[in-house]
Amino acid sequence: MPLMQSAPGPETILDGRRYLYFAGTGYLGLQGHPDVLKAAADAVYQYGLSSATSRTGFGNNPPTLEVEERAAAYFGQEAAFYYISGYVGNAILAQWLRDQFDVAFLDELAHYSVIEGLAMAQRPVITFRHCDADDLAAKVAAHLQPGQRPLVMSDGVFPSLGHIAPIPAYAEVMARYPGGLICLDDAHGGGAIGPAGRGTFDYFGLDGAPGGGRSAGPTGLYFSGTLSKALGGQGGIISGSREWIDQLKASSHYFNGASQPAVPVAAASAKALEIVSNHPELRQQLWDNVRRAKDGLGRMGLTVDDTPVPIIPLTIGSGNNMDRIQQSLMRQGIAIAYVRSYAGISAEGLLRIAIFATHTPEMIDRLLGELGENL
Amino acid sequence: MPLMQSAPGPETILDGRRYLYFAGTGYLGLQGHPDVLKAAADAVYQYGLSSATSRTGFGNNPPTLEVEERAAAYFGQEAAFYYISGYVGNAILAQWLRDQFDVAFLDELAHYSVIEGLAMAQRPVITFRHCDADDLAAKVAAHLQPGQRPLVMSDGVFPSLGHIAPIPAYAEVMARYPGGLICLDDAHGGGAIGPAGRGTFDYFGLDGAPGGGRSAGPTGLYFSGTLSKALGGQGGIISGSREWIDQLKASSHYFNGASQPAVPVAAASAKALEIVSNHPELRQQLWDNVRRAKDGLGRMGLTVDDTPVPIIPLTIGSGNNMDRIQQSLMRQGIAIAYVRSYAGISAEGLLRIAIFATHTPEMIDRLLGELGENL
Repeated sequence: MPLMQSAPGPETILDGRRYLYFAGTGYLGLQGHPDVLKAAADAVYQYGLSSATSRTGFGNNPPTLEVEERAAAYFGQEAAFYYISGYVGNAILAQWLRDQFDVAFLDELAHYSVIEGLAMAQRPVITFRHCDADDLAAKVAAHLQPGQRPLVMSDGVFPSLGHIAPIPAYAEVMARYPGGLICLDDAHGGGAIGPAGRGTFDYFGLDGAPGGGRSAGPTGLYFSGTLSKALGGQGGIISGSREWIDQLKASSHYFNGASQPAVPVAAASAKALEIVSNHPELRQQLWDNVRRAKDGLGRMGLTVDDTPVPIIPLTIGSGNNMDRIQQSLMRQGIAIAYVRSYAGISAEGLLRIAIFATHTPEMIDRLLGELGENL
Repeated sequence: MPLMQSAPGPETILDGRRYLYFAGTGYLGLQGHPDVLKAAADAVYQYGLSSATSRTGFGNNPPTLEVEERAAAYFGQEAAFYYISGYVGNAILAQWLRDQFDVAFLDELAHYSVIEGLAMAQRPVITFRHCDADDLAAKVAAHLQPGQRPLVMSDGVFPSLGHIAPIPAYAEVMARYPGGLICLDDAHGGGAIGPAGRGTFDYFGLDGAPGGGRSAGPTGLYFSGTLSKALGGQGGIISGSREWIDQLKASSHYFNGASQPAVPVAAASAKALEIVSNHPELRQQLWDNVRRAKDGLGRMGLTVDDTPVPIIPLTIGSGNNMDRIQQSLMRQGIAIAYVRSYAGISAEGLLRIAIFATHTPEMIDRLLGELGENL
């Protein structure tokens, strides 16, 4: 595995060489933003590396509280819970929701963190076909007993396939069952899609319930997000009403029994949220770049979808062939990922291209050109 | 909850006032060490906030690899796995060990992270009385069917009570059952106890098996640790043979499907490990301070144990009385914790004093004096 020797960005140093970089999850290009780095460095000198205690001890510090305030505002909610890693957000919500559902229905290609998080609820789990609301409806009809309440768990945006879960269709199914719930891991949606950049629910116009803890009509909508990807910092985030967030914090041992995100991480996350909030044009740049890349790939005869998701999966022949293409691009100084094995992908693997707001049109054209040479 | 406005150390600023601080988990005083802070700040400018991808993508960076090398050396092993939070180490080990045991035996006062981590193994769980090897033996005899293999899960050092799990006695019990395993969360032991500072196994002379993946005689000994407390950085750590660590990384989605610790956190952790490795006298200072504090408390007629654990729990009358004492000390400029509710403590709560290597004898004497005034 190569060694990353710079911040990830449109140009990234891997094993001593500078590459045009189309990988990872830094979709808005903030992980190397000078203001983000300065915020991290300044805060560590002011507040130390960490509080070395939990939030219920003496561990509240200004950067942590600033993240929660800024994240709440970003997601259009009153309050937020900021915790060590987006990975555990599904466990936090599954534990919270545990007494509010009887059977979970899980997208068959859901991320590891969704599967593992759901296990914390200790309820029966039925999988349904990937992004297939008809199969969801059939599975719920077949497996839910009268009076039982269903929960749908899924990624909002799938990390390798780039698919967006068809939430309105899922919500129609859930609306048939009193107490039906939908809970998303929106790690790759938050910051990247939706008019306000709030992620998958926002993308589908479910803006009345962008966070957990509110209900849009008959269906309860919950999601956990991350600051580690488009939003340019690190750590998990759940937003909602102040009352609900207080309850959620009281219910989760990630609040009272785990380290909170370190000081430089929290300070960087707060600054990145400030930048994203003040510069909505970053999202437009991202979407313009995604459009340019997908249009170009389509003209080359490759199959791409038509969404603003900055993850572009390509399946081009065998695994060996994709491995050859990836290595050839690396020799040309362009880094994309050949993902051999990951949640949601088939046995041959796939090529994964990540688009950033900070890629220039010329960079994208160069990728398209070199890829065309290597098909 | 008060706001921490400086690094945690022997003197810490809370809500604008400087306190003598005897709380939290920064036992070796490294979270505010100038070299640790500089390492964090320098690294963030060099490598960005994070790689924004997992270890199996392009996400290996020099600070992460340095932590794993230094942690392996510190724990006397060939290799280490460094992941986002010590909290999830129990889940990583429980998932790994899942096919190697049939029934888990859990200390009734184990930390939340142990209980939740063990749930990932989806095996029957029987609790035994806190730190009671006789009750463990009775429970195993009563609940294990012939041919089944037992696993003991426990904290190594308990975070509020300061007790050390009686591992040699547990190992005797496990030795009666082929395949018997012991798995510890050693978050509060690592760095703080044991001749080499490797934690609970080291403390009991089980130095042949300080990490996971080796076996001392008939009993398999595993532990996960953290760099977030005595060891002065942040993130979880498991060490062992190179072959086993490679297998463990391949088995855990915290390797291929989660953010790794951020760059400044990893760089700070590497520096803190370097300091701890080069300055064993820090541990001696810690133990001398613990001795001074426990001797003084004993002379005041308070019940304290006789171990080098830097956590001193005091139960002095009712919860209201302990709350009064804590608030009175705060008015005198001394911060200790009154823990109302936490894993392992009774309904009245307890006063928790944390001792650091960086406390001076005068600071400890001042704590003892003020505490004596307020009994």
